[in-house]
Amino acid sequence: MRPSGRAPDQMRAITIEPHFTRHAEGSVLIGFGDTKVLVTASVEERLPPWLRGKGEGWVTAEYGMLPRATHTRGNREAAKGKQSGRTQEIQRLIGRSLRAVTDLKALGERQITLDCDVIQADGGTRTAAISGAWVALRLAIDGLMASGKLTTDPLTQKVAAVSCGIYKGNPVLDLDYDEDSNADADANFVLLENGNIAEAQATAEGATYDEEALLRLLRLARMGCQDIFRAQAEAVK
Amino acid sequence: MRPSGRAPDQMRAITIEPHFTRHAEGSVLIGFGDTKVLVTASVEERLPPWLRGKGEGWVTAEYGMLPRATHTRGNREAAKGKQSGRTQEIQRLIGRSLRAVTDLKALGERQITLDCDVIQADGGTRTAAISGAWVALRLAIDGLMASGKLTTDPLTQKVAAVSCGIYKGNPVLDLDYDEDSNADADANFVLLENGNIAEAQATAEGATYDEEALLRLLRLARMGCQDIFRAQAEAVK
Amino acid sequence: MRPSGRAPDQMRAITIEPHFTRHAEGSVLIGFGDTKVLVTASVEERLPPWLRGKGEGWVTAEYGMLPRATHTRGNREAAKGKQSGRTQEIQRLIGRSLRAVTDLKALGERQITLDCDVIQADGGTRTAAISGAWVALRLAIDGLMASGKLTTDPLTQKVAAVSCGIYKGNPVLDLDYDEDSNADADANFVLLENGNIAEAQATAEGATYDEEALLRLLRLARMGCQDIFRAQAEAVK
Amino acid sequence: MRPSGRAPDQMRAITIEPHFTRHAEGSVLIGFGDTKVLVTASVEERLPPWLRGKGEGWVTAEYGMLPRATHTRGNREAAKGKQSGRTQEIQRLIGRSLRAVTDLKALGERQITLDCDVIQADGGTRTAAISGAWVALRLAIDGLMASGKLTTDPLTQKVAAVSCGIYKGNPVLDLDYDEDSNADADANFVLLENGNIAEAQATAEGATYDEEALLRLLRLARMGCQDIFRAQAEAVK
Amino acid sequence: MRPSGRAPDQMRAITIEPHFTRHAEGSVLIGFGDTKVLVTASVEERLPPWLRGKGEGWVTAEYGMLPRATHTRGNREAAKGKQSGRTQEIQRLIGRSLRAVTDLKALGERQITLDCDVIQADGGTRTAAISGAWVALRLAIDGLMASGKLTTDPLTQKVAAVSCGIYKGNPVLDLDYDEDSNADADANFVLLENGNIAEAQATAEGATYDEEALLRLLRLARMGCQDIFRAQAEAVK
Amino acid sequence: MRPSGRAPDQMRAITIEPHFTRHAEGSVLIGFGDTKVLVTASVEERLPPWLRGKGEGWVTAEYGMLPRATHTRGNREAAKGKQSGRTQEIQRLIGRSLRAVTDLKALGERQITLDCDVIQADGGTRTAAISGAWVALRLAIDGLMASGKLTTDPLTQKVAAVSCGIYKGNPVLDLDYDEDSNADADANFVLLENGNIAEAQATAEGATYDEEALLRLLRLARMGCQDIFRAQAEAVK
Repeated sequence: MRPSGRAPDQMRAITIEPHFTRHAEGSVLIGFGDTKVLVTASVEERLPPWLRGKGEGWVTAEYGMLPRATHTRGNREAAKGKQSGRTQEIQRLIGRSLRAVTDLKALGERQITLDCDVIQADGGTRTAAISGAWVALRLAIDGLMASGKLTTDPLTQKVAAVSCGIYKGNPVLDLDYDEDSNADADANFVLLENGNIAEAQATAEGATYDEEALLRLLRLARMGCQDIFRAQAEAVK
Repeated sequence: MRPSGRAPDQMRAITIEPHFTRHAEGSVLIGFGDTKVLVTASVEERLPPWLRGKGEGWVTAEYGMLPRATHTRGNREAAKGKQSGRTQEIQRLIGRSLRAVTDLKALGERQITLDCDVIQADGGTRTAAISGAWVALRLAIDGLMASGKLTTDPLTQKVAAVSCGIYKGNPVLDLDYDEDSNADADANFVLLENGNIAEAQATAEGATYDEEALLRLLRLARMGCQDIFRAQAEAVK
Repeated sequence: MRPSGRAPDQMRAITIEPHFTRHAEGSVLIGFGDTKVLVTASVEERLPPWLRGKGEGWVTAEYGMLPRATHTRGNREAAKGKQSGRTQEIQRLIGRSLRAVTDLKALGERQITLDCDVIQADGGTRTAAISGAWVALRLAIDGLMASGKLTTDPLTQKVAAVSCGIYKGNPVLDLDYDEDSNADADANFVLLENGNIAEAQATAEGATYDEEALLRLLRLARMGCQDIFRAQAEAVK
Repeated sequence: MRPSGRAPDQMRAITIEPHFTRHAEGSVLIGFGDTKVLVTASVEERLPPWLRGKGEGWVTAEYGMLPRATHTRGNREAAKGKQSGRTQEIQRLIGRSLRAVTDLKALGERQITLDCDVIQADGGTRTAAISGAWVALRLAIDGLMASGKLTTDPLTQKVAAVSCGIYKGNPVLDLDYDEDSNADADANFVLLENGNIAEAQATAEGATYDEEALLRLLRLARMGCQDIFRAQAEAVK
Repeated sequence: MRPSGRAPDQMRAITIEPHFTRHAEGSVLIGFGDTKVLVTASVEERLPPWLRGKGEGWVTAEYGMLPRATHTRGNREAAKGKQSGRTQEIQRLIGRSLRAVTDLKALGERQITLDCDVIQADGGTRTAAISGAWVALRLAIDGLMASGKLTTDPLTQKVAAVSCGIYKGNPVLDLDYDEDSNADADANFVLLENGNIAEAQATAEGATYDEEALLRLLRLARMGCQDIFRAQAEAVK
Repeated sequence: MRPSGRAPDQMRAITIEPHFTRHAEGSVLIGFGDTKVLVTASVEERLPPWLRGKGEGWVTAEYGMLPRATHTRGNREAAKGKQSGRTQEIQRLIGRSLRAVTDLKALGERQITLDCDVIQADGGTRTAAISGAWVALRLAIDGLMASGKLTTDPLTQKVAAVSCGIYKGNPVLDLDYDEDSNADADANFVLLENGNIAEAQATAEGATYDEEALLRLLRLARMGCQDIFRAQAEAVK
């Protein structure tokens, strides 16, 4: 029934390659099936001016998509001279999601930037980005702790994200592009390992939905995030 | 307990002044307490190039905030030369919300733009904008029908939106600025009169939340939207 | 003879609603007939870097027009990413006009920004903006004096502005849109209550004009400004 | 009394070198003393889309200042990525001034762009630009007529512009930089050879002025423009 | 003597992974040691307006560097809102280099865009990009020929590029970052397999150089390009 | 054979007018035939923030072309809101070339900006700009030395630049526009008076070239630069 033949509650293969690039303090290539996102965590020992002097740090994110990550080539945002509304919306979401599991006071007056660049897109790029960003952030903080710059771990727990949606009337987990572009509704959930919710977003595309559907989508997301938490744990072991 | 002394499930006063300006096909000044948003609906009998030739119309929105709508003056986006990520996120949300109740085929090859400009801000500007935009859209479509340009009503039902959040541990309805800037979580729900959901967004700010909290927030939103639906009906009578 | 049926030397109804919004130190909705401009005065107790250290303050203005203030919708300048030449010309004029009646040394090292946003346009938006900006500035300075931040009043006298033009060969006062878009020449005069001129601008549109016409336009402007001075006095009483 | 030792009604030396560059249909280097502006007139046999199909042409202007035309280096507008409000105000004025003496119907569906680039600045750059632009436009139209593309001359008469101002209490003609930066009021008049006024702008800088002063400034401008008309006539002979 | 211990005429390991991503008509991850560039070739069956109607196609390139490809994080060009001069210079060079081996008439009225995105940087990113772009272009054209859209091969031969420079007085091949940032002179040569030169650029950084040095650099480049041509041949076999 | 009738190794007339404008510390109008570039050198006694505190100065360049310097009018970069890739490439080249002959430590913590503005273009604008920039820089430094601000001359020797190319199969010196737009290859060489090379760039346009051609082009450039060095010496005598 799903174009990919997956069961409604079946994630695509989750692949996480930590240390994918050399220079960043943390880096990972995360894949949800054919969606591949490179996430790097860059530690800077200073804050932008408007964040200084509060005795705490900051975690922020930027998001980009390579022009031909997609089926047809999109314009390069650097060449157009501005980031789209979609890009800005996604990078704000990623930043919020990671701050939800970071104790900014414990981080101290430094900034960690999570650059999420989509190498190949097949639906779910923002959720893969969040899930990979946790790994990159974990690796970067491990480095800060190993070097003695941090003594208390500011990362309070795991965070993961997954999309789900109503496709041909059925709630399904982890939409790929074919499903995403034809879904009646799509949702993104950002969940903590303790079961709490950092962000829930469910949007009607073709048809509005009812409360029961919202709850079924959340339940699917919980299942998907369990898989992601396991893969994250494996990757940073 | 609430700074305003309201009960947890109490909306602020909803005020709707239809026909607030003269030139637009639909216009309204909507207030949720001290939040005041001017919404105009502009009908254009042509579509931008990328939407032409599909036999359907388009409903879109733009959002802005006057520089001194807020407690301290913000920079004018036109002077800065770009719209913030927040602005773009909000105007995308407004557009989606109104399209959820518009039959674009029935609208025909024309575009209606909903300009939502915040005259005064005290929390909940995006939800007031959506709720007011429905009124402006209704008025504009009434005009198209009165003039014979449309024979079938493309507006399928009412849509309204309201914020709610967890403030000092308690779920409350329709956050004002004092509450919004100190909430543990805040949410925006876009609901249809038939009870369906067009958009649900719930974001942890200071603390993540659980499923039960999500459901209580949704229930509060349903109560608030009932009040808004009544005010909308009154305004377009 | 005039589309509105007014006499050549007749102003439109002048309406001034002080304290139109809550947050600004001074605010006013001014109307010249169907032209409605919201002006707020924002006091900031610091100057931009290039104005610091001279022992004096600054008064500046920004101008904007809501996209559907006009008969047909204009593009939003924030979305286009730049302010038009017209916008910049107008906001420079407003700033100069108000500085002409402000003793910047007496103001001290603070900045007052006058945001003039056109809610509805029917000709004469810049002159309404200047006339309203005086009221907003007066209110803001009254506040500074009441709070003891200022002991000497830096506002030396009233300033008002009005347009006039040659319409179908006749000099007329306070052009509305119909007249403005068909005038042979249009002029804007910024006058002080003591009769002095802060700014005179008279531009040939369809036909050049002679010295006598210039003087008749100035005389009309003097008449109009008397009405405005009275309305200003009433508003700040 | 004037820093340059000139009499109050004395212009600086007016120099006009027609055909200063090769490629443009008309070109001139005009000097008002040390102010030197290169003006080229470029004829394009097509109009921008929004001007097409009205059976008439268009005359427009652009203005720029080389970064080191001035006493201290200014930033290059192309590098900053935008034209200042001052630049836009000036180029709008130049365009209007030349259109005041052009019969756009007689010009036919073509556009002439007057590029006014200040090579060296010593006050009065906009008035030198307008005065030189007339020469460049005259030369370009002469070419169109010589080639048979035009049979009726669309240039109806001469236009010239000059600044004047109140300097240390005295009305003086053709302000240089020293005077301009210390004037109580400065004015620009755009005059036709028949005595009519295309544009009058008089701005209080340090002190407001009265009606008599306005008239004395206009009288000085008339004297200066006589000199410019003679120099223009000489240049295009 | 070289930081890496390489011989003066020794390339770093060349790695080429064709088909690195799925959606592009041609794609490759090329590595010169730790420099890794992802190149995709996107075929579009239409040309931008200014290239239409000449009976020939176009090959163009865009270049970007992920923010943390480098030792310290650089700002994202999309966020800054413009591409740096360096970026534009490089993408112009890549485009020219590939056009030097493409018969644009044989290509027909289609455009191929080569997106070169640096995943990890260690010197020589532009030369790796050119060398990889040939592979991506070859793969894309193979696809066009396999599908019958092209019957004549428009790619006339191989092109490759390599950097070399004067490091501590010695000409060396294929500079890595350590060498590049301390070189007296650095050069980039774009060579064809038949020995011809498409582009030679040799720039003094710390010290100017003589003709003999230029020739030695060219000779080193020839050696390096032989290795690259072999790797390219292997990759597209 | 050449459109201009020149011999293959013949430069166009080199004209250098020092002190062309008044305000700049150094200024020159340089001509290579019909190519005319105005270069000013502006001395600023402070560095931009990122260059401060290293005990050395900086020499930088900006380049622009007046819109009608060319055969057909080009868009003004200030109006477009960005500098083209070509402009940026050229100004980077000019800056590097002049720094190659400047001892930045001897210059001290000051910046000299070379503004190169093309008044009229007929090929070779960047090489005329470099050659003229040396004169402007020489004059500016002469001023610093005369005033005692510098005691050691930081300008180590002369630098000049010239283009050459393969036109109809023949290497020729100093391409004019007709040749440049039809050349098989074109090159720019930046040479020092002692024979050393600061920059060599040779680009295939219509056809790639071999090593012998590269050397012949370099030889032509040496001949042209001898002429330029003589003209420079004459100009600053």
